[in-house]
Amino acid sequence: MRHLLTLDHMPRADITRLLDRAEEFRARGQQRGLLAGRTVLNLFFENSTRTRTSFEIAARRLGADVVNFDVSRSSTAKGESLLDTLHTLEAMKLDALVVRHGENRMPDWLAEHANTMVAIINAGDGSRAHPTQGLLDALTVRQRRDDFENLSIVICGDIRHSRVARSDVHAFTALGAHDIRLCAPRALLPEDADEFRGCALTEDFDAALGDADVVVMLRIQKERMAAALLPADSDYFAQYGLDARRLALATPDCLVLHPGPINRGVEIAPEVADGAQSRILDQVGNGVSVRMAVLAEVLTPAA
Amino acid sequence: MRHLLTLDHMPRADITRLLDRAEEFRARGQQRGLLAGRTVLNLFFENSTRTRTSFEIAARRLGADVVNFDVSRSSTAKGESLLDTLHTLEAMKLDALVVRHGENRMPDWLAEHANTMVAIINAGDGSRAHPTQGLLDALTVRQRRDDFENLSIVICGDIRHSRVARSDVHAFTALGAHDIRLCAPRALLPEDADEFRGCALTEDFDAALGDADVVVMLRIQKERMAAALLPADSDYFAQYGLDARRLALATPDCLVLHPGPINRGVEIAPEVADGAQSRILDQVGNGVSVRMAVLAEVLTPAA
Amino acid sequence: MRHLLTLDHMPRADITRLLDRAEEFRARGQQRGLLAGRTVLNLFFENSTRTRTSFEIAARRLGADVVNFDVSRSSTAKGESLLDTLHTLEAMKLDALVVRHGENRMPDWLAEHANTMVAIINAGDGSRAHPTQGLLDALTVRQRRDDFENLSIVICGDIRHSRVARSDVHAFTALGAHDIRLCAPRALLPEDADEFRGCALTEDFDAALGDADVVVMLRIQKERMAAALLPADSDYFAQYGLDARRLALATPDCLVLHPGPINRGVEIAPEVADGAQSRILDQVGNGVSVRMAVLAEVLTPAA
Repeated sequence: MRHLLTLDHMPRADITRLLDRAEEFRARGQQRGLLAGRTVLNLFFENSTRTRTSFEIAARRLGADVVNFDVSRSSTAKGESLLDTLHTLEAMKLDALVVRHGENRMPDWLAEHANTMVAIINAGDGSRAHPTQGLLDALTVRQRRDDFENLSIVICGDIRHSRVARSDVHAFTALGAHDIRLCAPRALLPEDADEFRGCALTEDFDAALGDADVVVMLRIQKERMAAALLPADSDYFAQYGLDARRLALATPDCLVLHPGPINRGVEIAPEVADGAQSRILDQVGNGVSVRMAVLAEVLTPAA
Repeated sequence: MRHLLTLDHMPRADITRLLDRAEEFRARGQQRGLLAGRTVLNLFFENSTRTRTSFEIAARRLGADVVNFDVSRSSTAKGESLLDTLHTLEAMKLDALVVRHGENRMPDWLAEHANTMVAIINAGDGSRAHPTQGLLDALTVRQRRDDFENLSIVICGDIRHSRVARSDVHAFTALGAHDIRLCAPRALLPEDADEFRGCALTEDFDAALGDADVVVMLRIQKERMAAALLPADSDYFAQYGLDARRLALATPDCLVLHPGPINRGVEIAPEVADGAQSRILDQVGNGVSVRMAVLAEVLTPAA
Repeated sequence: MRHLLTLDHMPRADITRLLDRAEEFRARGQQRGLLAGRTVLNLFFENSTRTRTSFEIAARRLGADVVNFDVSRSSTAKGESLLDTLHTLEAMKLDALVVRHGENRMPDWLAEHANTMVAIINAGDGSRAHPTQGLLDALTVRQRRDDFENLSIVICGDIRHSRVARSDVHAFTALGAHDIRLCAPRALLPEDADEFRGCALTEDFDAALGDADVVVMLRIQKERMAAALLPADSDYFAQYGLDARRLALATPDCLVLHPGPINRGVEIAPEVADGAQSRILDQVGNGVSVRMAVLAEVLTPAA
């Protein structure tokens, strides 16, 4: 694997290998020698302290140097083209660029235009993909459920604009899931249902939750709610928030996931976020392990 | 020691052990193997480049990884609760959080709510405590004076709002000092004198300096001066600034301390800040050593 | 060499030794043991993510710790004097300060006032010097041309305000160059031609390019163009931009350099920046190697 750009069409065997490797790193904690002498640069065009920190910790636990390139203060802001930034960073002999960008497919574009062997890792691009999130969500489910074939999975929130929803669907379906229900108010359901082919679309959260084994709640952006003429927080919560009553509609041990940061009382009730079925903190821990696996995969020959 | 939250009620033996360990690190310079593979995260809700840098250097000289979590750009600013931030960081398997926060007791609150063995180190909370500053001030005095029982110590400045004054009083009294004189204009003296029990309170700086062995000058915040209807800079300096004439009222070799950064001509005259009795730069060097000792103490079994 | 402040009057032997060492590091990639246990602090009063990153990568490839001191959030901004900042940083036992400052000679002033053995490395001061840029430009030329004696070199752009032009002239002349042509609109030619003694001054770029072996294009600051009543971008490009037609006036294999970040279509045409004669990305790679050489030179006894 040269780059990690998307999970779309990634073979099941590749995903399984990455998850297996993440489990090894989770057990082992660190392996400082693996990437010693390598340099990983975080190139975040959108702020995400949490994801950047997760990648930074992952890279260091493998012994790599990590450089945080402060885009907001760089010459990119002064009008240098992104291509010139790419080639400049490559000329410094970096081994990997971890890229977050507001536009879809920008990491792919960087990978296509790279002159060197630099690995591009997508840390989230527009509404299109967030592959390490998809992997860590799949790992979190796999730790608790034996096989994806028999799972009913609900993803609820701003599906239309969510790169998390897209990468989750790619990961879960690759691993065998075929009952995935995407739930949102109409304005936040996908415009193009083909993008999520195989998934059911619904506006009725209660119905979607019936017999669900996994429910992934998405963070709702308040800006988006206003733009979509959505009801106020409390009304949104009444219709699409996950509280204990609603969670009881699912199977008794239904797993609850959320990519974070959570908006308590907007899309998820505190008693659910902090409850026994919540796997939210497992996700955070798995995030570091998955990112170690991805860095190891693109920067070293497979074991 | 699991955490370092305050020096209040810390036993003399613990303080002495920390200072002894700091002296060892000062002599040795570094000990890269001690915290190799450990991760320390700086979580500063108030900016303090200087203190953050001192902790960063201390942690690295013990071989730890250091991650600076940029609170101003994180989801905390987007409304994530502090508790969710804490648990998220814990899930990344951090070993220590170095916390600065504007509210009193916030580090204690984090320590109480931690789910894991993460160590919380208070790098200054509100007006309540700045324990590493108290320790480094005590170390600076101890390097020049044999015992605290016979010392007369003056602390002058904004006592009321100063976490430095509180932690200094805790450290100095634990080590045996019983003649501590707190000096400030009335509006900046403590409202509750019990908090500083055993210390004399005075508005008369000249009188307080008589026979003093140590004088700790505090940084005066200009915002505070205005709010407290204090006189302008030059008038403040006339009454509470430490210049050569006033320093001559103390013992001939009276030590001069200041936590920095200094306001020259506001609370201290250049000839004193740069003079032979100034120990201000010793304090900075001791700061790194003390922080190494604290990190070693909370992250490794005692030697 | 204790510090690196300027290339002005640096002996040819010193420059040659630094370039030779840079070549060694370029071949070797890294040498982690060389500066293990040393601490380098980046102290940038002007933002330059690119140069800061280059120094950071260089220091880490030699095994040093790197601390980025965020001046914009530090007490310097709160009114601490630069001298107090210097002495505070020295008290933390730093080995080198990499300084960028808007005022001429500020790094020299820091070197004069340092109390310790800390090495000061100038990463650009005002319009006066940018010695690592001069060295990396010299290295880039030397990799392609055997000797500087016979070279005709053109430097074009805002000569008057350019620290790059000054350091390039110092490096190239020390290595034997005596045909250096400085080209700019009148308002951007030097006020004091003595500063560039030995160099020809001209406003005619086409004429200057005749038989040129090397052309260094400088980044033009749009603010400066307005202030100097210069023509708009397109007019500037017509007179002083380097395009393929103009480059054809030089020798067929004339090298094209630019310190970056480039303004495409303002001072350089894309077909030249990306063309076969462009050495711009070599410069970036050489920047890391030269900074490794400089750090090694000031922090270790010569090999």
